[in-house]
Amino acid sequence: MRGIYLVTDQQACMGKPIESVVLDAIKAGISCVQLREKDTSTRLFLQRARILKSILKPAKVPLIINDRVDIALAVKADGVHLGQSDMPYEDARRLMGPEAIIGLSVETWKDVEEAERLDVNYLGVSPVFATPTKTDTKEPWGLEGLEKISNYSRHPLVAIGGLSLLNTQTVIKAGANAIAVVSAICSAKDPFAATQSLSKLYEQS
Amino acid sequence: MRGIYLVTDQQACMGKPIESVVLDAIKAGISCVQLREKDTSTRLFLQRARILKSILKPAKVPLIINDRVDIALAVKADGVHLGQSDMPYEDARRLMGPEAIIGLSVETWKDVEEAERLDVNYLGVSPVFATPTKTDTKEPWGLEGLEKISNYSRHPLVAIGGLSLLNTQTVIKAGANAIAVVSAICSAKDPFAATQSLSKLYEQS
Repeated sequence: MRGIYLVTDQQACMGKPIESVVLDAIKAGISCVQLREKDTSTRLFLQRARILKSILKPAKVPLIINDRVDIALAVKADGVHLGQSDMPYEDARRLMGPEAIIGLSVETWKDVEEAERLDVNYLGVSPVFATPTKTDTKEPWGLEGLEKISNYSRHPLVAIGGLSLLNTQTVIKAGANAIAVVSAICSAKDPFAATQSLSKLYEQS
Repeated sequence: MRGIYLVTDQQACMGKPIESVVLDAIKAGISCVQLREKDTSTRLFLQRARILKSILKPAKVPLIINDRVDIALAVKADGVHLGQSDMPYEDARRLMGPEAIIGLSVETWKDVEEAERLDVNYLGVSPVFATPTKTDTKEPWGLEGLEKISNYSRHPLVAIGGLSLLNTQTVIKAGANAIAVVSAICSAKDPFAATQSLSKLYEQS
């Protein structure tokens, strides 16, 4: 996992349709898109996932589904992102198959240690900084925490939480292999320009 | 689908562990158990499903998972029960395979008509009577509605909503092939005796 990783959030899009934000992000070179839906019915979640898959597939950008392995299987998404209260990694891998991208959020040092024995495709270091988008997270890792994980773990690291143009380079320096953002793209006036600026910064780091 | 069909509800168990209610229901001859969890994390839902599967499998009582095909696949449940905002039937069938039991709730006449072209294993006629357990349902079908569906549909009917010893026989007379209950067993002082009484009444009808 490398580059800029977009996590969609209906609310953070502030009225813009997610599909248009994703189309803009694709044009500007996004590496990966995760669909995250909370408090939505299975049917609506599935509908949105199917639309995103139809947009992302021709662009060869992987679609990752947050939490829901059934949605991922139904729309043939490229993978799932698991939190610590979601399906355990082993079950998800068994259902998704060996080729799927499976990411796992780590929120404590114990999570990081336990993830060493799992063949996850990346760790979501969550949150690096405090963030208004997600309120159910633990203490932020900070740059020091990220660096500590980077020195310890064998997995690629996707940093998430409070990331923007202002801190992308220091976060990569601290060991992040990819930069995940929500509001920095979803809430941007111009999601295309926002993605492009983040990508440029990433490539220059 | 025939006999007494238990839908579990943590809250309706009023402090009793679901597992003990299910064990009692098995001993008293329950035909089927559906695990319904709302506002629970995927991980907890999965844990409960796995425990119920381990209890139900040796008793050869099928376990049906409400809504979540991923949970059903992970614990090798016997089927899923779909509401009208859950995964569409075709997607669920594709993921669950031809042998799975797939039930579908019908809440409107349009739902009943559309279900005719689907190879569902049963229709959940929901709710037959008004019920305090589920507050997001439409107008009750009543005995007349149930009879109308029974005359029209090619599918076995599982009646649910406000069912108890008091109305089981009239509901069967109106066309129900199975009787689904929540509180009549979960909230009973003695779930074994409650299941046994319902089963006897069913067999006598």
